Amino acid sequence: MTNGLKVEKEHFIYAFDKNTEPAVQVSPGSRLVIETYDCFQNQIQHADTTYSTIDWNRINPATGPVYVESAEPGDILKVTIEQIDLGPQGVMATGPQLGIMGHRLNEFEVKIIPVQNGKALFNDKLQLDLNPMIGVIGVAPEQEPVSCGTPGSHGGNMDTTLVTTGAVLYFPVYQPGALFALGDLHAAMGDGEVGVSGIEIPAEVTVTLDVIKGQSIPYPFLENKDGLAVLVSKETLDEAAKSAVEIMADTLLPHTDLSLGELTMLFSAVGQSQISQIVDPLMTARFFVPRQVLDAYNIQLFNGSLAE
Amino acid sequence: MTNGLKVEKEHFIYAFDKNTEPAVQVSPGSRLVIETYDCFQNQIQHADTTYSTIDWNRINPATGPVYVESAEPGDILKVTIEQIDLGPQGVMATGPQLGIMGHRLNEFEVKIIPVQNGKALFNDKLQLDLNPMIGVIGVAPEQEPVSCGTPGSHGGNMDTTLVTTGAVLYFPVYQPGALFALGDLHAAMGDGEVGVSGIEIPAEVTVTLDVIKGQSIPYPFLENKDGLAVLVSKETLDEAAKSAVEIMADTLLPHTDLSLGELTMLFSAVGQSQISQIVDPLMTARFFVPRQVLDAYNIQLFNGSLAE
Repeated sequence: MTNGLKVEKEHFIYAFDKNTEPAVQVSPGSRLVIETYDCFQNQIQHADTTYSTIDWNRINPATGPVYVESAEPGDILKVTIEQIDLGPQGVMATGPQLGIMGHRLNEFEVKIIPVQNGKALFNDKLQLDLNPMIGVIGVAPEQEPVSCGTPGSHGGNMDTTLVTTGAVLYFPVYQPGALFALGDLHAAMGDGEVGVSGIEIPAEVTVTLDVIKGQSIPYPFLENKDGLAVLVSKETLDEAAKSAVEIMADTLLPHTDLSLGELTMLFSAVGQSQISQIVDPLMTARFFVPRQVLDAYNIQLFNGSLAE
Repeated sequence: MTNGLKVEKEHFIYAFDKNTEPAVQVSPGSRLVIETYDCFQNQIQHADTTYSTIDWNRINPATGPVYVESAEPGDILKVTIEQIDLGPQGVMATGPQLGIMGHRLNEFEVKIIPVQNGKALFNDKLQLDLNPMIGVIGVAPEQEPVSCGTPGSHGGNMDTTLVTTGAVLYFPVYQPGALFALGDLHAAMGDGEVGVSGIEIPAEVTVTLDVIKGQSIPYPFLENKDGLAVLVSKETLDEAAKSAVEIMADTLLPHTDLSLGELTMLFSAVGQSQISQIVDPLMTARFFVPRQVLDAYNIQLFNGSLAE
């Protein structure tokens, strides 16, 4: 396995599925460039695109799956987001039954959004800052296939703004080789993704894939320079937000000399309960703990990868 | 009415109630210093305080109410948070049936947290940054009294980290004089307040109170240098988060030349769906729109007070 391998966007999946044939097989430590369609599989190139001209069976393609050698059920797949290169043009859409305002919208609307000089040109009044991020990222689930439009313990459509350059993600491995894939890039998105789309855009994403043997986690974790988050998807936002706190408490408690009550107080003072998205088939929330807490107790989760 | 009037903490309420006699009457434009107990009414001074020694009828006192002349139902009370001066010692508590981890806790725990040199001393390993904020702030509601432990359209126990120095809050006025009160200061708190308490602390808060005539809002709004949020409290976090998006859309749409669909897309790209607290009798979420959007359309809500 050489570094710099490119997985082209023609190798895509619409569902994370243990039975999908891998697009490529790599050894742990490999760096890959993964090319992606936008979430509409590049079907919307002009503002006059109508709802009926879109093939809605071709939504949320994720490029892959990548078989990572030595990854076995009960391990962790570590994914470092090295670089995101966006295409030159994004698109947004919303309409009836889509997103938070769908009950108030009468027609499907599309907006083409050029990306130029580091800005997304929403209209002549608004040049928006970019926050490039990956909407769909994950591994094959334990049981039945999961559509790339749905998030879960395997990752998938988590639509989390933190999934960006410099972030390190940790996924539970359920299948031999993990069967990793990603797609659904956004040039910008706010927490919530309230209209159902971010600024959807094709991209090339550079990642490094590693395997952490013999350690299992119930939901994806994300590490960045500021700290550690767990990303939990449930039927309701209330359930997701509460579960994220509990998973983080169970994860960190054994690494401290605090009682569960004390750790809960610490979380209440400095932990952050945050919304990822509220428009997908399951809701995604996260609980974020600042690095100061990890450093104070020299917490080295995931084979020490959290050590500074 | 002279500036610099102080409302002492002995003037307090346990519920926002249209029938409470005002502690003080002021004219619009008045600046007040409001002295507050902590949320335990300063009953916890030592770490050996037990659950049974606390009088749980004396919780969440808010100092006031302040009768603001000329405020009438259908107006807005504008509250500028000028300054927050914290006391020297905070306290946290959690336990069975309290907060997100309450189902896992077997005993009530208390922690005294000194505040020194701009840090909250959680223990010998953790000196936490302060983010002083007001947990309980609001006006008398339209109908029945609302306990100071519960949030709602009148404000109350919104436990929102944004309610801090420099913020401007806008409350719907339901009763003559508005009957404003505040309390439940925190030296620090994370979004969610997941353990049920922040770092609870007595304080003195300097506010300026103004009345905006003849303009009504369905929930409190908050303005700061970064933008505008609406703070919505509902039975579930899902409802609160969704309602906040819709209220913000209805508020801003008439001030733009965008369709509702376009505004929704803009919200999806740059608006932030955020958690305030998930441990009170109702859940509080907010939707935040960056100032860039307000500036682009020269949006002047609330009698122009949002104009730069």
